[in-house]
Amino acid sequence: MLHQKKYRDAHGLFPVEGEKCVKEAILNKAKIKEVYATPEWIASLDPKTGLSNVHEVSQAELQKICQQKNPNAALAIVEQQDHKLDIDSLKGRVSIALESVRDPGNLGTIIRIADWYGIDNILVTSDSVERYNHKVIQSSMGGIFRVKIHECSLEETLSKASTNGAHVLGAVMDGRSIQESECPEGAILLFGNESKGISPALRSVCNELIRIDGAGKAESLNVGVAAGIISHWACS
Amino acid sequence: MLHQKKYRDAHGLFPVEGEKCVKEAILNKAKIKEVYATPEWIASLDPKTGLSNVHEVSQAELQKICQQKNPNAALAIVEQQDHKLDIDSLKGRVSIALESVRDPGNLGTIIRIADWYGIDNILVTSDSVERYNHKVIQSSMGGIFRVKIHECSLEETLSKASTNGAHVLGAVMDGRSIQESECPEGAILLFGNESKGISPALRSVCNELIRIDGAGKAESLNVGVAAGIISHWACS
Repeated sequence: MLHQKKYRDAHGLFPVEGEKCVKEAILNKAKIKEVYATPEWIASLDPKTGLSNVHEVSQAELQKICQQKNPNAALAIVEQQDHKLDIDSLKGRVSIALESVRDPGNLGTIIRIADWYGIDNILVTSDSVERYNHKVIQSSMGGIFRVKIHECSLEETLSKASTNGAHVLGAVMDGRSIQESECPEGAILLFGNESKGISPALRSVCNELIRIDGAGKAESLNVGVAAGIISHWACS
Repeated sequence: MLHQKKYRDAHGLFPVEGEKCVKEAILNKAKIKEVYATPEWIASLDPKTGLSNVHEVSQAELQKICQQKNPNAALAIVEQQDHKLDIDSLKGRVSIALESVRDPGNLGTIIRIADWYGIDNILVTSDSVERYNHKVIQSSMGGIFRVKIHECSLEETLSKASTNGAHVLGAVMDGRSIQESECPEGAILLFGNESKGISPALRSVCNELIRIDGAGKAESLNVGVAAGIISHWACS
């Protein structure tokens, strides 16, 4: 049932599948309501984790309630977390903002990138892919439990952040090459939709437009790859 | 039928779906055997393309023979291309090598990166995901028609290339940070399997091991993102 967004929203819960992902949820102190797992997986648990509501099931039973096809040993039901965005907390550090990113693999990959570079906050528009989508969770590789994702109006939030000293950098095809200078302090790196890029309304909120130079014939880079290259530039 | 690898291999053909992808095949002079398309799509074709074997079908008929779910206007049957690898042609330029990359989205993304940076050659091991897999083609965004992909023994080919003046750089977790120096001339950037990384046998062929520094808690980056960051470093 929690495989559908409407039920996830109604209950404020989401399913986490796979031993590795469930262990990440435990390690990162996610609020776990229930765990369904094989006897072997339960036996491998550190008793100090103090998990309650652990239900023993067979692998065949687990397969029936999971979305992933690979053999699996554990499923956790986890509480959704609402992070209140404090604009002051963005000061002096790198953040990411995503406008209408729709592909779950792309959002998951960008959460993983943020998690790699120690970027704590990702701002997303409400029409972005849902962060509790199964593929987002899987491809974030545990990042979903460490990186804070804030759904908000980017026009309003980026304008406020900019007034508050942040430097909003929009990744576009016709900006200034990132080769040409260093990333400013307190940068918010903005990436647009997979096919349309950044909307005119949000372009006008940017303090600066930046681009990644290429010498080949491709029209563009995948948004996850672009976010990786620009985050590397901003964080190193 | 061509949705299955065994038939693609037996006939030396592969299907290309979607208007954009089929137009890329035409523009890049891929050897197209047949096209199945809607009357509107056929009418939009530049007559100078001189395509023969264009069959008119309805969108409903097209939907039945295509793998992608979105409404679609064209399907092309294209000849597979065997590029003979000339090790001398790698001299003085950046190339990419992939060991056992299994996810089609990752291979497609890396082809798109190569296409963006003007990297002409990708060497892959024979146990990598097949380059004519539907998802590889879709995510390469036309790159499949421009970047040469060579299936080979990487142990043998990288050793020969290294003797021939190439500099093989393996992306690992414990190498020298790419922050610390420039990329050498004639670099072959080697990336390993999604979960196992580069095998000990191929590590020993590398002239140098490199890493991407991160300040966060993620265990690793996605191989496509790592390839993007390292290609950017090598090509700019």
